[in-house]
Parts: sequence; C-alpha cells; structure tokens
Amino acid sequence: MLLVTDVTAVTVDDRRRIVTDAAIAVDGDRIVEVGKAVDLLERYRAAEVLDGRGMVAIPGLIDAHLHSPQTILRGVADDVPWRPYLEDFIWPIQGGYTPEDALASMRLTLLEMLKSGTTCFVDPLVHTRYGFDGLAQAVVDMGLRGVLAKIVMDQAGLAEQMGVIHPGMVEAEESSLAEAERVLQAWFGGGGGRVQVWYGPRVPREPAVACSPEFYARVSDLAGEAGSGITVHLAGEREDVPFFRREFGMRPVEFARKYGLVGGNVLIAMGTWISEEEVPVLAETGTSVVHCPQPNMKLASGVARVPAMRRAGVNVALGCDSGAQNNALDMIREMKAASLLHVVSTMDAAALTAEDVLEMATIAGARAIGRGADLGSLEAGKQADVVLVDMRKPHTTPVFDPVANLVYAAHGGDVDTVIVAGRLLMRGREVLVADEQEILEEADRRGREVVARAGVSVAPEWPVE
Amino acid sequence: MLLVTDVTAVTVDDRRRIVTDAAIAVDGDRIVEVGKAVDLLERYRAAEVLDGRGMVAIPGLIDAHLHSPQTILRGVADDVPWRPYLEDFIWPIQGGYTPEDALASMRLTLLEMLKSGTTCFVDPLVHTRYGFDGLAQAVVDMGLRGVLAKIVMDQAGLAEQMGVIHPGMVEAEESSLAEAERVLQAWFGGGGGRVQVWYGPRVPREPAVACSPEFYARVSDLAGEAGSGITVHLAGEREDVPFFRREFGMRPVEFARKYGLVGGNVLIAMGTWISEEEVPVLAETGTSVVHCPQPNMKLASGVARVPAMRRAGVNVALGCDSGAQNNALDMIREMKAASLLHVVSTMDAAALTAEDVLEMATIAGARAIGRGADLGSLEAGKQADVVLVDMRKPHTTPVFDPVANLVYAAHGGDVDTVIVAGRLLMRGREVLVADEQEILEEADRRGREVVARAGVSVAPEWPVE
Repeated sequence: MLLVTDVTAVTVDDRRRIVTDAAIAVDGDRIVEVGKAVDLLERYRAAEVLDGRGMVAIPGLIDAHLHSPQTILRGVADDVPWRPYLEDFIWPIQGGYTPEDALASMRLTLLEMLKSGTTCFVDPLVHTRYGFDGLAQAVVDMGLRGVLAKIVMDQAGLAEQMGVIHPGMVEAEESSLAEAERVLQAWFGGGGGRVQVWYGPRVPREPAVACSPEFYARVSDLAGEAGSGITVHLAGEREDVPFFRREFGMRPVEFARKYGLVGGNVLIAMGTWISEEEVPVLAETGTSVVHCPQPNMKLASGVARVPAMRRAGVNVALGCDSGAQNNALDMIREMKAASLLHVVSTMDAAALTAEDVLEMATIAGARAIGRGADLGSLEAGKQADVVLVDMRKPHTTPVFDPVANLVYAAHGGDVDTVIVAGRLLMRGREVLVADEQEILEEADRRGREVVARAGVSVAPEWPVE
Repeated sequence: MLLVTDVTAVTVDDRRRIVTDAAIAVDGDRIVEVGKAVDLLERYRAAEVLDGRGMVAIPGLIDAHLHSPQTILRGVADDVPWRPYLEDFIWPIQGGYTPEDALASMRLTLLEMLKSGTTCFVDPLVHTRYGFDGLAQAVVDMGLRGVLAKIVMDQAGLAEQMGVIHPGMVEAEESSLAEAERVLQAWFGGGGGRVQVWYGPRVPREPAVACSPEFYARVSDLAGEAGSGITVHLAGEREDVPFFRREFGMRPVEFARKYGLVGGNVLIAMGTWISEEEVPVLAETGTSVVHCPQPNMKLASGVARVPAMRRAGVNVALGCDSGAQNNALDMIREMKAASLLHVVSTMDAAALTAEDVLEMATIAGARAIGRGADLGSLEAGKQADVVLVDMRKPHTTPVFDPVANLVYAAHGGDVDTVIVAGRLLMRGREVLVADEQEILEEADRRGREVVARAGVSVAPEWPVE
C-alpha cells in the first residue's frame, strides 16, 4: 500500500473534482481511493507514504502520437516546410537506422516522457528495421506504457519508384504483415499489460501510394479480429484534400469510412484538414483523433478543427509528435499550445479551456487507445498512474486554480514524482528506473552517427566558429 | 575579472556567431572579449572562473512588456475575453493595491525573471498608488534591469464616469505628470543605470478617453526633453480600429504619428491590429513594437503582423505581458510561441525562425529601450548580461543547433546561471541575491489578500472539495 498525502488532486474523473488536502491510496497497481488525506490516513495503513505538499496530482499524461525514432534527431531540420523536412532530413536519416539507433532514441524518448509526466504514448510507425522487440522491452524496462503500432504497407515498391518512401523504409506487404502478426502474438499483454501492439498502415498522402485502399480494409479486419487498434495519419497537410479527391473521388474521412479506417479502435493522427462536414462521421463511428498543435504550427501544416470536433462529440487526444518536429516532448507545454492556438484561431477565449486540454491529455488519450476504463483519471479501480507537479516555483505562485496553473504556467520541468501501475519511477526528479546519464550519452552519440551516416548536413543557420 | 569558460556562445552580435568551446571575459560590468576558451584562458587572469560546460551562453533576455503588478494574480481569470478579464478581475483587484501589494508582485516578477533568464524588462503602467520608488528599489536590489513607465493621463474623471477606469486607478493630469517628473529626477541613472524611467500614457481604447490627443503630444514633448521614452498600448484589440476611425477619423498609427507617439524613443505595445499599410510609418519613424504572442492568443486578441513588420524594417521586441494573462513570464517559451504562431498564421515555415525570435528577445529588446549599443548581445564593450542555459537535459539532447534547442526545446527552467552587469545573480539555479522562499510566501499571501479585498470570485472552473 502506497499513500500519496497532502496533495491537491485533480481527478479528471466524471465528476471533474479538485480535492484539496487529498490523499491517493494505491494498492498493487491500482488506485483504491482518492479522498481527503485526513480520512484516508485513518483508513489505510501504508507501507510507503509520499508527501505531496505543494504539489498537484494529475493522472499520468498520455501522448497519443509520438515518433520515438526522431527524438535523437532533435534540431536537425527547423524552420523548413514538411516536405523537405521529411524528404531531405528525416527519411534519409531514419532509412539508415539500426535497431541500436532506434533503441537509443526510444530510451531518450522514455526518459524525456518520464521527466515531464507522460506515462503512456502511441508510437505510430514502428518499422521492422527498428527492432520491435527491443523497443517494446525498453518500454517495459522503464516502467512506462506504450502502444507500438507496427508499420504495414502493400505497395512499397511502387512508392519507392515514385520517390515517396526511402529505400531504407520499404517493407513488402507480406513481411510487414507477418512481422505485425508476430509481434502481436509476442507482446500480447506484455509487461503486465503495459505494452499494446497496434497496426500502423502508412499514411495515404500524395503521391504516397504505399498502401492500396483494399489494404487498409484488410488491415482493419486484421486489427478487429486481433482486438488490436489502428493509427493512421490522415489529412495532415493541405494538399491531402485535393489528392484524395483526385485519386479516390472523395474526401479523406469518406475514404476512411469506406476502407475501415473509422471506429472505436481507430486513432486518426493530425486530421488538420478534416472539414466541418466530415466531423460527424468521426463522432458517429467513435473514431478518435489525436491533435498535435505545436508540430502542426511549426511545419505550417494548419489548424485542425478541434473545438468543432469536441462539440460534435469526437474524442480528441493530444500528442507531441516528434523530437525533431516539436522539438520537445512535453505534454504540459503542448496543452498550453493547444488551448492558445484554438482560442486565437476561433477568436473565442473559451474555445479550448485549461480543463478541456487537460482532458485531452489524460482521459481522451486513454479512450483513444481503448483504455478509458483503466487509465486517464484518478479514481478507485483504475491503474495507479499518478503524476505530482510541484507548484512551489516562482512561475507557479500563487495557485488560485491548480488546473490553470498546470496548463498555463507550469512546464514539464515542474514534474516532481511519477508513479505508473503503482510503481514509483521518479521522485524529486530523480529517475529511479534508469541511468539518466548513460541514456543521454548514448542518444547524443547515436544521433550524431545516424546523421553522419546519411550524409545530411544539419549545420546551424548561424555560422559556427 | 570573471571568465565563463567552455561554453557555446550564441553572440547575437552583428556577425551572428556561434562560438563553440568559447569563453566570455568580463571586467567590472562589461564584456571584454568573447572568443575561443583556449585563447582567452591564456590572455586573461581571472579571479573567478565559471565552468560553462554543456551550456549555451546567450545575452540576457529582455521582456519588453511586463505588467509586474499582475504576477500575484496568476490564474485569477482564465479562458475569458479581454474585457471581462480587465473589467471584472484585473482592474477591481489592482484598484485596491497598496504599495506593499505591488512590491510583493514586483519581487515575485523579478524572481521569476531571474530564474528564467530575463535580465531586463519594461513595466508599462506604474501607478502612483503602487509606490514607484519601492518598485524601482526592488529592481536595483535584485540586481536586474527595469524600464519603469509611470502612468500618466489627463481625462481620468471622464474615463471614470464612463466606467472604463477603476476608481482606484484614477490619477489627475497634474498629479500623474508631477509624479512622473519626480521619479524621472529621482531615478535618473539609478542603480548604476539599471533603472530607466519612462512615460506610460494610458491606452487609447474604446471608450477609454483617459488621455486626450493633445495630452499624448504633450507627453511626447516631455519625454523628448527629458531624454526619456514612451510606451503605449496601441491597436491591441480588433475593436480599436473602428474606434479610432469613429473617434478620430483615422487609423491607430496615423493617430500615433499625428500626436507624437512614434519615433526612436517610442515602444508600441501589441499593435495586433496595425494594418499592412500602417507598417511603413513605424519603420520610417524608427518606432519599436513589442509583440506578446501568448497573451494575444490567450485573450483572443488576434495575430500581429510581425513578419511583415520585420520585413519592413520595424524593430519588433518580445514580451510576456502578465502573470495573469500568460500565465508564465518565461521568455524562452515566449520565443517558441512567437515563431510557431506566425508560421501557422502565414503558412510559411520560415516566417519567423528560431534565430529571428532570439533576436526579438535580445537585441531588438535592447534597441526598443534605446540601449542597443549597450545591451542585447554578447560582444566586447557591452554590459555583461549573460545567461547560461543547460543543454544536458533529456529534452535538450542532442544539440545539433544550439539556437533551435534553446528556442524550440528548452524552457526557462533550463536556465542555470545569470550574470547582470558583471555580477553573478544565480548559479546552478540558486538565487544569490534574494530569499526565494520569503518572496514566494509574501507573494502568495498578498495575492490572496488583494483578491479577497476586492471581493472578486476566482474559484476554479471545476468543483473544489
């Protein structure tokens, strides 16, 4: 029994409570009770008591879209549009990855997540060449949660011919599906349920023909049969809409509906250019969307209709996307960016409130990965994924509203303590489950190596002496 | 002689150099040389050597628009439009301030600035009731720099009658000007030149008639004669433009030109609704603008034409505005927001690069306060305002480009060391010039008191148990 005491608990449960002078009782991997500390201290005899004074307790943050291989590529390509970003930098570099490179990037990702309060994430495109098992094992070893989507495609040869996939990223239909099948079996319920395996069919994007429409339908069937999920980039860039119209004679969400890319086990990434008319389809089918505000801003991709989606009842999660594109993986900073972007875009100061974005970063993320009953809020019976954020800093003083302070004033560096599945992973910012220095050094070395190997110039804009 | 060694120096001087393995030699309050550490270690015998390994050195950040009284009001009014924000929350609360309240907020402001690498700021509206001398002395005591603009107005009675100024904020023309004259004399060159006194005429805004057009002209003359400057909010909200047209028959910048609110000693705050056609006037007259991206986003004020202004040659600085409105005063986070906002607004990935926003936060800020020759870059002869940012964190690893890492990955919590005028104010995040705990406690207490005194409800959105 673990007891977090004297904390301000922001539950994000159905009653959306803020409990002051609270305690959170944890037994094994589950929350037993959230209530007033004075009551819980009487009720439970705890083996371990964590003093939460001056801190706000929130559910572990869920980053619903995070390309782990790109974390060691932080800063290789800034202030460039998405096509050169991908084609001249990210793809050629990632196309030369070894499993050791991908592992170093994954471990840096997990460390950065842990230190900023993110306890669960979706990795949308895990290539065979990255070594799926090593990555999944790293998630387990760090004590965190991950949904790893194995990339699948059926027209890689054609895509390669058209120059929209790097040779190093090509996977044949059968081999990519076979590997997906294998890792699904191997990791089913892996790490005490902390690893989930999904399908990540390659994005339909001009002239990205790496997947045929029929292949999406087949993947949809496979995922359904396996009780797995699908995540797919959709309508992320402005030019995607005319591409869908030209290529398939329909809008992106129509396409998604026709070929099985909608439903309760589907998570659409970006959706930047999904129109008002398409939104109801997402709501009706229970399809989730993950919004990545800062990456969408930084690559001039556009502004997704998040307030409209939420009003229509679409479950919208939040993601940081990529260390190369964001360039931080800090869900607290991403929450603020989400709120501010949609307020100024709609010129409505309440378009996306602090409370709204906190929901997106927690319970909506949990629902997006089919774990709404188990994750995403602080309440009895759920997994004990608890994050304590220290509010005794100059930039978080005073605390009139813990939610506003968390979202608008705090940043990931204010996260003090992280508990996942009842296990204490970080306390007082000290990581208890990994050698931080070793991960940083390895990531730094591998990052430089993969860039050098690809022969890509990543010199800063300003002259270096 | 103080020597910072083994640092990556981002000079922001005219050559825009990045010097690796650099040293910065400081003698008294000035920088003597920036160059390779191996050379400087040979050339200078330093009494004190600061190891800058793993860190990036930048010029002290300059927050060109920061209402210090609002820092103790962090989180009192979120997700509301600007009118209720000001009229129902900020004004009634500030209208009841004592000098002790304003001082507590100022000290929290200075502490927050120091801990996030901001070494100089512009406080745009210092009321007589806040106790100017106490605030200026606090800046001096903390070792930082401040431009404090004494608020002046000539139609306060009319404004009060129309309900656009809180009774507690009313100052008569003569008393506000007399106080401005007094503090100008008292603080001329104060704190070794670390305090500057400016004029802060109240914003012309519907139906804010606290200043007559002729009064602006008179203030312009007074500031010119005194070698002082002026900062004024202009065209910050959409409705300001039709107001100017209706009331004065011209656009805001035409008004500003006609009544002396342009020129090298004028800093226009916000300028959110300044049109493309007005921009050349600002450039021709050498008028500076301070852009506050996150506050403008959060209150749904709009998006200023920053890339167009910069292209036209306007000096555009950066500001965090207010602890109540932002809600953090973190210039590093503000830089990222500035870049991303303008990229997505213009759909141009290079609209405002990492380098551009770093300039805005340093040298452009220095020019905006008439200190371009003395502040804003790391170069021989300038004041030694040096900030070291620690890049050995998970979210700042690897470092391919120190500028990109600083702007897009880092946050204020990564600032390790702050030197102002050659004096070490913070080292290893330990504040050497103030009792941090005492400031936090006083700010927390005063914040609660001023809100209670005003009888304003600041309950969180979610129910508190």
